[in-house]
Amino acid sequence: MTEEIVVIPGDGIGQEVVPAAQKVLDAVGDFEYVEADAGDAVKEETGEALPQETYDLVANADATLFGAAGETAADVILPLREAVDSFVNVRPAKAYPGVDALRPETDLVFLRENTEGVYSGHEDRLSEDLSTLTRVVTTSASERLAEFACDYVDDSSFQIAHKANVMRETDGRFRDAVVSVAEENGVETEEVLMDAFATKVCLNPTQFDVVVCPNLAGDVLSDLAAGLVGGLGLLPSANLGPERGLFEPVHGTAPDIAGEGVANPSATILSAAMLLDHLGYDEEAEAVRSAVEGVLEEGPRTADLGGDASTEDVTEAVVSRLN
Amino acid sequence: MTEEIVVIPGDGIGQEVVPAAQKVLDAVGDFEYVEADAGDAVKEETGEALPQETYDLVANADATLFGAAGETAADVILPLREAVDSFVNVRPAKAYPGVDALRPETDLVFLRENTEGVYSGHEDRLSEDLSTLTRVVTTSASERLAEFACDYVDDSSFQIAHKANVMRETDGRFRDAVVSVAEENGVETEEVLMDAFATKVCLNPTQFDVVVCPNLAGDVLSDLAAGLVGGLGLLPSANLGPERGLFEPVHGTAPDIAGEGVANPSATILSAAMLLDHLGYDEEAEAVRSAVEGVLEEGPRTADLGGDASTEDVTEAVVSRLN
Ligand SMILES: CC(C)[C@H](C(=O)O)[C@@H](O)C(=O)O
Ligand SMILES: CC(C)[C@H](C(=O)O)[C@@H](O)C(=O)O
Repeated sequence: MTEEIVVIPGDGIGQEVVPAAQKVLDAVGDFEYVEADAGDAVKEETGEALPQETYDLVANADATLFGAAGETAADVILPLREAVDSFVNVRPAKAYPGVDALRPETDLVFLRENTEGVYSGHEDRLSEDLSTLTRVVTTSASERLAEFACDYVDDSSFQIAHKANVMRETDGRFRDAVVSVAEENGVETEEVLMDAFATKVCLNPTQFDVVVCPNLAGDVLSDLAAGLVGGLGLLPSANLGPERGLFEPVHGTAPDIAGEGVANPSATILSAAMLLDHLGYDEEAEAVRSAVEGVLEEGPRTADLGGDASTEDVTEAVVSRLN
Repeated sequence: MTEEIVVIPGDGIGQEVVPAAQKVLDAVGDFEYVEADAGDAVKEETGEALPQETYDLVANADATLFGAAGETAADVILPLREAVDSFVNVRPAKAYPGVDALRPETDLVFLRENTEGVYSGHEDRLSEDLSTLTRVVTTSASERLAEFACDYVDDSSFQIAHKANVMRETDGRFRDAVVSVAEENGVETEEVLMDAFATKVCLNPTQFDVVVCPNLAGDVLSDLAAGLVGGLGLLPSANLGPERGLFEPVHGTAPDIAGEGVANPSATILSAAMLLDHLGYDEEAEAVRSAVEGVLEEGPRTADLGGDASTEDVTEAVVSRLN
């Protein structure tokens, strides 16, 4: 059976790392790609960063692989997360042998609420001097995330990072909903304030493993964890909905190196591995991950990791480990 | 002239580190203390975490030194910040020679907006399922902070950390107000998204020096910086208003070691140094800072820094460097 995947390279190094990941996907399965546009370049051409056609394709696809968008990132990625009805953003942050990391023992996964919080986007200019944003938290979205988390940790335990000491009603609701679903499922939870998490994860990342958090907390704390494992260059992510998924590296367009063929494709290839998981290709996903890990450990390496290999060198090295 | 200072030891190690800082203050000046209660203990006794009497004392004092509060921290510290009309929370995060730090080159100051953002505290339970929080940003508060920042950096430059790509209207307003005040003052600014800041500061903290940010961003990012310099144990802070100031270590009550006389008093002593700055004792403030730095470098050290000295040992060592 041929599986159809929507690919959106987007801007900057997205144009290089998405094709690289496609080569890796082709090494483990039989996929057909539907390419779509989004980002600064298409906005310049058409006036729209996210053409309706792209939105519709993503909203109807089982899986989409997205690269990066520049200035228009928020205009592209936020609606696309909605398009797949994504209630969770899965963000593993793991240090790899062979990669220089501030905390080489880091091995965390963030399960970030992906629809609400300050991202719900209701902002008002109430006067010359004053603007407001309405931060939204629902029990239903929090429970949906918690059910996913219980499943994800397979009945062991997870941490909850929040700021319910200040946002008592909204993060309180989030916390209570998550804790109560966990209790029903016999899953243990531990709470940590998001500011305290920021200190603690630097001092000892091994005290955390799966961290459930509201939208903005997940955004910031996962980027912090990226800093501990050596940068955004290696972090994949999965925006999951009840049926569909949108997979993207956490990094951006890297305008300084775009077009030179030297971008590190690892984060996008690891995102493709999460896409394989989503489509049920568990063995293939594992094989891709271990091929990437092998290359990270033994080279070749791109410049961000101290090497001088090209995107293509790294991609070929991953592919040759899969053959 | 005898200067009056309100002291609020609060809970846990607050009871040990505030008296330690008073001993240091006494070594450099002639102060009179008015002691007041706040926190879990007084709540247990009287039902109120922040007695009106304490609030009034702080609201009328030039300077207050606060230790820590336990479960009731938010009930104490947020109203006290209001009591001094504090529009900025100054949070230096600096690594010290002799102290084990993840990034020993870290030397940053956060200028955190201290009145609004998600801390403005308007929350509503709109239905069985849904709660909201109204995040407030005003041009006037942003400008007041920016003017302070321009003054603070003495016409050089500062960074602004925000999330205006998502919170366009509110953080957009914050950013625009801060940038325009800086431009009027001939101060250069550089913008960084708060999530990107979290990665970048881990990879290279020296690219930042003075970071101006909204309330919650300042809370989380300064705690992150604490993780880079070796923990919260060393971080002082100043809540400044147009006239009054409230000075507090960034750490909490440390219930695990409270009452044992082994808490590290450095953060509170460094907060007292910021209090001296505020009262105009610039030389004394500098002397206290360099005495603390000397002790951090040469010992004695408390257990959190790998030593076995008591709070008193460290305090005496600081005092003896001042004599
Ligand atoms: C581009 C931006 C809207 C986005 C976010 O804040 O979610 C990005 O930072 C991310 O984490 O994927
Ligand atoms: C106790 C809490 C309300 C407080 C805050 O969030 O401001 C604390 O974390 C701090 O940073 O001083």
